[in-house]
Amino acid sequence: MVKEFLGKDFLIENTPAQKMFEKAEKMPIFDWHCHLSPKEIFENRQPEDITSLWLGADHYKWRCMRSCGVSEKYITGDATSEEKFRAFASCMPYLIGNPMYHWCHLELRRYFGIEEILSPDTADKIHKKANDLIANGGYTPRELITSSNVTHLCTTDDPADKLEYHKMIKRDINFGCKILPAFRPDKALGIDLPGFKGWISDMERTAGTSIDSYEKLCEVLADRIDFFETMDCKASDHAFSYIPFEKANKEELERIFVAGKAGEQLSVRDADKYKTGLLTFLAGEYSKRNWVMELHIGPMRNNNTLMFRLIGADTGFDSIDDRQIAVKLSAFLDNLAVNNNLPKTVLFTLNPKDNYVIGSMLGNFQTDEAESKIQFGSAWWFNDNIDGMREQMKALGNLGALGKFVGMVTDSRSFLSYPRHEYFRRILSNLLGEMVEKGLYPFDEAVLSKTVCDISYNNAVKYFGIE
Amino acid sequence: MVKEFLGKDFLIENTPAQKMFEKAEKMPIFDWHCHLSPKEIFENRQPEDITSLWLGADHYKWRCMRSCGVSEKYITGDATSEEKFRAFASCMPYLIGNPMYHWCHLELRRYFGIEEILSPDTADKIHKKANDLIANGGYTPRELITSSNVTHLCTTDDPADKLEYHKMIKRDINFGCKILPAFRPDKALGIDLPGFKGWISDMERTAGTSIDSYEKLCEVLADRIDFFETMDCKASDHAFSYIPFEKANKEELERIFVAGKAGEQLSVRDADKYKTGLLTFLAGEYSKRNWVMELHIGPMRNNNTLMFRLIGADTGFDSIDDRQIAVKLSAFLDNLAVNNNLPKTVLFTLNPKDNYVIGSMLGNFQTDEAESKIQFGSAWWFNDNIDGMREQMKALGNLGALGKFVGMVTDSRSFLSYPRHEYFRRILSNLLGEMVEKGLYPFDEAVLSKTVCDISYNNAVKYFGIE
Amino acid sequence: MVKEFLGKDFLIENTPAQKMFEKAEKMPIFDWHCHLSPKEIFENRQPEDITSLWLGADHYKWRCMRSCGVSEKYITGDATSEEKFRAFASCMPYLIGNPMYHWCHLELRRYFGIEEILSPDTADKIHKKANDLIANGGYTPRELITSSNVTHLCTTDDPADKLEYHKMIKRDINFGCKILPAFRPDKALGIDLPGFKGWISDMERTAGTSIDSYEKLCEVLADRIDFFETMDCKASDHAFSYIPFEKANKEELERIFVAGKAGEQLSVRDADKYKTGLLTFLAGEYSKRNWVMELHIGPMRNNNTLMFRLIGADTGFDSIDDRQIAVKLSAFLDNLAVNNNLPKTVLFTLNPKDNYVIGSMLGNFQTDEAESKIQFGSAWWFNDNIDGMREQMKALGNLGALGKFVGMVTDSRSFLSYPRHEYFRRILSNLLGEMVEKGLYPFDEAVLSKTVCDISYNNAVKYFGIE
Repeated sequence: MVKEFLGKDFLIENTPAQKMFEKAEKMPIFDWHCHLSPKEIFENRQPEDITSLWLGADHYKWRCMRSCGVSEKYITGDATSEEKFRAFASCMPYLIGNPMYHWCHLELRRYFGIEEILSPDTADKIHKKANDLIANGGYTPRELITSSNVTHLCTTDDPADKLEYHKMIKRDINFGCKILPAFRPDKALGIDLPGFKGWISDMERTAGTSIDSYEKLCEVLADRIDFFETMDCKASDHAFSYIPFEKANKEELERIFVAGKAGEQLSVRDADKYKTGLLTFLAGEYSKRNWVMELHIGPMRNNNTLMFRLIGADTGFDSIDDRQIAVKLSAFLDNLAVNNNLPKTVLFTLNPKDNYVIGSMLGNFQTDEAESKIQFGSAWWFNDNIDGMREQMKALGNLGALGKFVGMVTDSRSFLSYPRHEYFRRILSNLLGEMVEKGLYPFDEAVLSKTVCDISYNNAVKYFGIE
Repeated sequence: MVKEFLGKDFLIENTPAQKMFEKAEKMPIFDWHCHLSPKEIFENRQPEDITSLWLGADHYKWRCMRSCGVSEKYITGDATSEEKFRAFASCMPYLIGNPMYHWCHLELRRYFGIEEILSPDTADKIHKKANDLIANGGYTPRELITSSNVTHLCTTDDPADKLEYHKMIKRDINFGCKILPAFRPDKALGIDLPGFKGWISDMERTAGTSIDSYEKLCEVLADRIDFFETMDCKASDHAFSYIPFEKANKEELERIFVAGKAGEQLSVRDADKYKTGLLTFLAGEYSKRNWVMELHIGPMRNNNTLMFRLIGADTGFDSIDDRQIAVKLSAFLDNLAVNNNLPKTVLFTLNPKDNYVIGSMLGNFQTDEAESKIQFGSAWWFNDNIDGMREQMKALGNLGALGKFVGMVTDSRSFLSYPRHEYFRRILSNLLGEMVEKGLYPFDEAVLSKTVCDISYNNAVKYFGIE
Repeated sequence: MVKEFLGKDFLIENTPAQKMFEKAEKMPIFDWHCHLSPKEIFENRQPEDITSLWLGADHYKWRCMRSCGVSEKYITGDATSEEKFRAFASCMPYLIGNPMYHWCHLELRRYFGIEEILSPDTADKIHKKANDLIANGGYTPRELITSSNVTHLCTTDDPADKLEYHKMIKRDINFGCKILPAFRPDKALGIDLPGFKGWISDMERTAGTSIDSYEKLCEVLADRIDFFETMDCKASDHAFSYIPFEKANKEELERIFVAGKAGEQLSVRDADKYKTGLLTFLAGEYSKRNWVMELHIGPMRNNNTLMFRLIGADTGFDSIDDRQIAVKLSAFLDNLAVNNNLPKTVLFTLNPKDNYVIGSMLGNFQTDEAESKIQFGSAWWFNDNIDGMREQMKALGNLGALGKFVGMVTDSRSFLSYPRHEYFRRILSNLLGEMVEKGLYPFDEAVLSKTVCDISYNNAVKYFGIE
């Protein structure tokens, strides 16, 4: 029996899964990590058209197009809206097996009621139909967030950010979703990147003080954390290609900071010492405030120098790193734990080879401070697909307490990406249902319902301390 | 059709598998690698209760509890037997997908005839029922070993151990299971660990001689190997986070040994030289006696300093290492082979990313000295679950001769863990049955029966040279 | 329902797959990477017997035999044809799960019409039957290539090779398959291997000039590339255990070349500099001519010194390396791209842990110069099995445009290995069919037919620029 494409039982292959998904799909969404813009949420502008919504900033789609040999003109270039949409549609038939194929069709169905298959033949028709709907309204950021049943959403904010848009959004009592900031000090840690000096200046401007020493930097960042705390921040977020862990004393950290601020070329070891020192300090601050520390491990960024020069970062030229992480990640977490500075922590890996390393690492540092205090973050970015999500959940199931998992995040820049939660919940329900169907877990509907609803929503709310 | 939880056809999903498992389940057990205590086997004491049997020393269960946020008081602390059992039961519903869920219920059924699902609701009832049965007898170490149909069992013994308990067990002609020692010189190799000096003292006491040189150490260890040989030892066992391989001459080895014995801080390179030298020597000794050398590669131990200080080693704070192993493992084995010193060897990996590295490594060193002289050890510890076992067997099947596989070990500290052999045999039968059902292998019942019985028992008996 | 072994629907488990395979199986073969000998193709000799065809040079089969404990006498030694065939047959029952089991039976069926299961019982009968057929003719290299429906085939040729056999084959207008050379300068890059000096001499002889400098070497190689181009070469091919990437200036490269040619011991870093420099130069030359650059990453060769001394290279003592590749592979490709020297490139990995690293790496360098200009090479050697092929295709599907995949290569030394294309096409059809059956892709027969036919043949023809 060939199933209908994207039908009612999409990804659901057994009776227990059906029952579970019925419950899971009704749960609201807490999107605790995304890259949505507070400015855009505040301004709440009417989108131009489906091309701008879909292709304006989505490097996932851009990669798909480049893989099919589409010229950059139709991706980030000056082609028209119709041309770009058509170019994207021309790639669709070749994307068999790619989650983009599902995401696009889910978005067309859930937000536009368009059930046609997107292809070169249907491109113009769908382009027009979607644009007519958009013109009729209902597609502003806040409308999309609301219609997606999102109760809370954490953006990604630099410490130097004054969170002005967050303040303004907060004042709008008619908007049902709580928009929370998340603290992302990547630029503070990026002492080996060209933008470091500029970031220090920004930070000095925001803080109204000069930052002449490592000690001063820590002081300023602690202040910013206090400020973010007043804005209901519950989480920080950090990205690392690999886990740096090199111990250093205060004097060394001061020396390295001064050199880095002066734009001197640092050794990898010195940069790692600085990152270790500062992240250790920050973790202690998060721990004091009961924040969650998210570590996103494994992206290798801006691999294509030519394109980076042309169109900058976050344009689809990142891939997966493969460096060893176990020894240093363990040492880093242990160093925090032994000093009682280890906050609740979510470990994400971009390289699926590390699923079992991460899955077993969790257990080294669990305590009664939270249920699964150390979490294994859901499959993300290049793993945000059926296989990747199943593998992450199976590793967590085999090695930890899957029932305590804080579940899915969109990690997205698009207001149309919430069907990825539906995607996740279907995959989750199906995986658990498979276990039940095979006699690997009892068919106890109450327990199973609780499990999927917890993983879909409740666990995250409890873990992040959202009230 | 939803299958009954843990029913008759648990893990068996096709007709050929049913036929195969019927044969496999009747085979006895040769548990050629475990951590059972010869002392406990000799003393053969009545266990206190189910809590002591289950939670007294099982760090797998402790990890599960910590993952659910249970306080250490109820894990290794001073809570009562009832409280601890209840705390463990409270975690069960969250362990969907965890092999612990299956192991516990298998043990309740196979040893206690208890078919209820363990949960907070049933905890007290099951606690009482199991304890009543235990009080009625039949649960001493030897009774459990005998009722589990174990014909031979290899413990894990330090070279300094005089094997007194082994001698005493041997004298009991009424005990049907042969308890064999296995030679585990981890402490002799651990020159970079705090316990090295103490171990040398222990070894000196046992040997009745002082060990002042590397040469003397080798001499003493060769004597111990001779002694273990008289005690029917057939195997050695070694654990490594990664494979050290650094060549050194005699003078260097002497220098490093003296420094290590004096408690000096050694460089990683020097420690690796020592380990390489000594393991090479030992392998030669094993080879002479036709022993099997087991290498367990990949654990990263005692990651949580705080808990190590509180409750010591082997308490659930280990995880999976991810260092590169291919180049040095190859060089190590080649160096033995070229000198005709390579014994029968079982390579275990704790990191599933290395399944194909190990699986293809075997083939480099196979000879006619044994059928699959170099073996790929079964999925172990963090991989001792359905996925891990399937992946190991599929890798071995794809790359080697699965029909010559020496199969499962419990690697356990618990006398109740023998149903893991049933678990393994079900998974094995099902995997092979799947191949047959899909037309990937002929449905020849005689060949298939032989295959599962060989892998379940016969191959290991032949390989280890058990008579 | 147990399926017939190797029956009509072998590996085909759903209706869409059936439909797709009906189309795919009719497509011809373009074997764009193999190790067939142009000499043997030219000479087109009658094979001695099935033992020589099967066991004369196939190190895959030799490994299987060694894994079962067969003595080298019956593998590469002086046993008779019957004895060797019997020894191989004796291993068959133990190879459950090994692709060799399928390949052998596919070859017996497709080329000999022999449907019996090969086993100790049938060995002599099959040996005789196959030999009788061989004696009756139809089993010369060209006959096998023709009956396998191969339209084009790329061999693997050293730059010093004058391609005399290629010239002679070209003159035979009755042979329907185009035999193309492929440029494999591994020996030119192997400055750290014993054969380097000898290769330089060979190259000097072929080029009719002395090669006294790195610059001269580049000049000579560029000439050879021109010559290969006149012989319709479309591709180069390179094997690396890991990706070397160390930048160096001209002076350094000259110094290293001179030292290497003089047989001096080079540091790993210097050898890597040389390889980086030369491969970068070569890539530029390929790019100019629109050739495809194939990189085979991950073999660790000649691991068994003893056997290497006895029987040399390519005899079954290679395995899988596990070094990190992401950072240096990215840097290498980027360095080419930024200089507009990046040719069409096929990245193969022998270590399945790198499937997602490679799969995501492609996207960093795609342009409109070709459809999927950077390709993920099909699962190869130790991964050339059902699991390996599925995992490679799933990774490519998740991360790229599977519909643009250039598909399978035999990578084989045997003229009987073409059923591996059938094997691949069945696995491909089944994987895509599974997606359709599960509702993950629409059941559009036209699109699906095109997809499998493209991947089976058309994409490669287009990508390599075969006319």
